[in-house]
Amino acid sequence: MGGDRGPTEIVKGGVDYARATGETVYLVGPREPVEAALRACGGSDAPVEVVPAADVIEFTDKINAIRSKRDSSIHVGTRLVRDGRAQGFVSAGHTGAVMFVSKVMYGVLEGVDRPALPAPLPRIGPGYTVLVDAGANVDCETEHLRQFAVMGMHYARRIFGVENPRVALLSIGEEDSKGNEMLRAVAPILRAANVNFVGNVEGNDLLTDKADVVVCDGFVGNVALKVGEGIAESIMHIIREESAKHLTRRIGAALMLPAFRSLKRKIDYAETGGVPLLGLKNISVVSHGRSSSKAITNALRVAREAQVGNMVGHMEMELRLLHQAERRLAL
Amino acid sequence: MGGDRGPTEIVKGGVDYARATGETVYLVGPREPVEAALRACGGSDAPVEVVPAADVIEFTDKINAIRSKRDSSIHVGTRLVRDGRAQGFVSAGHTGAVMFVSKVMYGVLEGVDRPALPAPLPRIGPGYTVLVDAGANVDCETEHLRQFAVMGMHYARRIFGVENPRVALLSIGEEDSKGNEMLRAVAPILRAANVNFVGNVEGNDLLTDKADVVVCDGFVGNVALKVGEGIAESIMHIIREESAKHLTRRIGAALMLPAFRSLKRKIDYAETGGVPLLGLKNISVVSHGRSSSKAITNALRVAREAQVGNMVGHMEMELRLLHQAERRLAL
Repeated sequence: MGGDRGPTEIVKGGVDYARATGETVYLVGPREPVEAALRACGGSDAPVEVVPAADVIEFTDKINAIRSKRDSSIHVGTRLVRDGRAQGFVSAGHTGAVMFVSKVMYGVLEGVDRPALPAPLPRIGPGYTVLVDAGANVDCETEHLRQFAVMGMHYARRIFGVENPRVALLSIGEEDSKGNEMLRAVAPILRAANVNFVGNVEGNDLLTDKADVVVCDGFVGNVALKVGEGIAESIMHIIREESAKHLTRRIGAALMLPAFRSLKRKIDYAETGGVPLLGLKNISVVSHGRSSSKAITNALRVAREAQVGNMVGHMEMELRLLHQAERRLAL
Repeated sequence: MGGDRGPTEIVKGGVDYARATGETVYLVGPREPVEAALRACGGSDAPVEVVPAADVIEFTDKINAIRSKRDSSIHVGTRLVRDGRAQGFVSAGHTGAVMFVSKVMYGVLEGVDRPALPAPLPRIGPGYTVLVDAGANVDCETEHLRQFAVMGMHYARRIFGVENPRVALLSIGEEDSKGNEMLRAVAPILRAANVNFVGNVEGNDLLTDKADVVVCDGFVGNVALKVGEGIAESIMHIIREESAKHLTRRIGAALMLPAFRSLKRKIDYAETGGVPLLGLKNISVVSHGRSSSKAITNALRVAREAQVGNMVGHMEMELRLLHQAERRLAL
């Protein structure tokens, strides 16, 4: 039921993935609308299975409401994973709810207080910058940001093959003296930690090659992501409008179509599909609220890759090694 | 000396403005580099005057350093305004320093604790959304955000002619329950205040028509602005690269050139030039750190319009009326 386009697009995404891979996809939600969506996309014969969940978490629900809806699709879905019946969970629903319920259901790895949501941002050149936290943790303390740095570093290494990821803080000036109270307090902690801390970067550096992991609290991260999306969409909209104004421009736009398509692929979140929450003992993938069926199919791929690549086991090991190294330093 | 391109571009911008308007422009800074820049741009015969300032405020300077450099170009320039020798001050330097020194030099209007920096963002359709604070105030309390709302409302009304500006909070969800601790505390204050509060907007709404004034703390505002700039530049860069790849695309891009120019004009901060700090008893205009001479010329125009339109007097009156209305409500 999650996302602005659920259940239609969500169910179709699951069906497409199941057909393409032959793997079983559980479609979790209130039976009637989910089955209707399944019929609507002609997916009744695909290797999917409807798992009923009576409650629906709304975007307006606060933590107590989320906690009490024990039969929500997020609860039922993560329970399937916890009990080993499924290998990963994907949701385009309430990000905070996915984080909260996953944390309760799976538990967090040693050394992690809160799971973090990474956002891999495609750079102008090759590669990605990982923004963490991208919206799962709104009010943070310095220790949380240190943990985001560590988990983001691990993610950049495992997913993007960056050997020694450069970690930076998202701030409003490059000097340590810039930033708000919390950032000024975090900088020395990261300098002392066992991470390759390269200092502050600014908002306009997110798509450049200055850092591999950019750390911020989830409020700032979410604002940054949404602003980026909004600007990208506005520019494409203005180009479309301007292009339609004269015949010569229309011809020009037609000739440039492959260039625009290539740009769209580069900035389209549907291509990524979703990102795994970091620091959990099992796999939950958060997908965009506006996810299309294609985004959901790709999000299911992300969940599968996290499972096949043993993301959780590797992160657990890395956190343990880091912990040991820091204890040695402290002795 | 301010900005990444000072003093060359700054001096040239002043010379161009002085020549175009016949008004006197004081070029404030260490005599030698300023006079060298003046000669370099062939502006020695323009109606400009070099006013020496021995100190230079660096981007790394903290508040105590700024305070002690009493002969900095920011101090000398704002002193010229305070003493009535000049009618407005423009700087592309350290925004925090311009705010701090202007506040000390001019004083703030009744009902204002801290001056605010507005950023007028061009919408996809006609009109502007005013983001306030755009980076002058990093660590804020709820009362500061209330004042930003009031000053932003006044700015939208005076500069963009919006009769009853809609005020919103920049958050990560439209419901009052979304956002960080501070935002959740500000929402009821704005609902009770004498402003047309329409609730929360998200980062991707900044360029839409959902609100006329969007309020946030200066840290979030600055990150949002810089992310927007970075994304816009990246997209233009990718389009340029993609366009150069094949002959047909190159032809297409050539035919579309007027469309791209029109887009660039729309998103180019040099077209705006600078924004006045709000809530001061006199005029200081903050220009972008990367300002070209054209941006500086336009920033001088902004200062002039603020002076001619009696921005300070109008804001003072409006704040007084608002204050009286709120007192009546409280009785």
